[in-house]
Amino acid sequence: MEGHDHSHKERKQVVNRLARIEGHVRSIKEMATDGRDCPDLLLQIAAVRKALDGVAKVILKDHLEQCVMAAAGQSNQEQVLEDLQNALDHFIR
Amino acid sequence: MEGHDHSHKERKQVVNRLARIEGHVRSIKEMATDGRDCPDLLLQIAAVRKALDGVAKVILKDHLEQCVMAAAGQSNQEQVLEDLQNALDHFIR
Repeated sequence: MEGHDHSHKERKQVVNRLARIEGHVRSIKEMATDGRDCPDLLLQIAAVRKALDGVAKVILKDHLEQCVMAAAGQSNQEQVLEDLQNALDHFIR
Repeated sequence: MEGHDHSHKERKQVVNRLARIEGHVRSIKEMATDGRDCPDLLLQIAAVRKALDGVAKVILKDHLEQCVMAAAGQSNQEQVLEDLQNALDHFIR
């Protein structure tokens, strides 16, 4: 699914955060290659997980403001809510 | 801290998993750039988080087998356990 007609106003911030997370994972990979200690690696992995939660929050907030509100009263409203519910089910464990 | 004298036997697997996670985050970044829908992004972020938990488990298992066992009876035993505890505190929320 893509291209429904609304803007994601925080999308640039989301891309920037994901770029930082990508770099962070790359640096952890390099730490592992260099034989760095396990607790150091675990701390960095925990930091990445926290950053992922942060970007997920931004996406979710954006989604609630832009997508769900835009769908109110439209014919695809139930599908939008079902997609969101599905995403949340996978995210919140 | 690095370079204490034992091998991390699963280190190659850890590096490979981190490389895959790095590629996965990059692809999510590209999805965000392309304007893909929020639920799609959230599903992929959840998958990355699961993959991070998987690699953390491998590192932890490796650490318990190699580092903590190796430290048994050595003078730095308490420091090793403290480092591990610290890492776990950050990881398990």
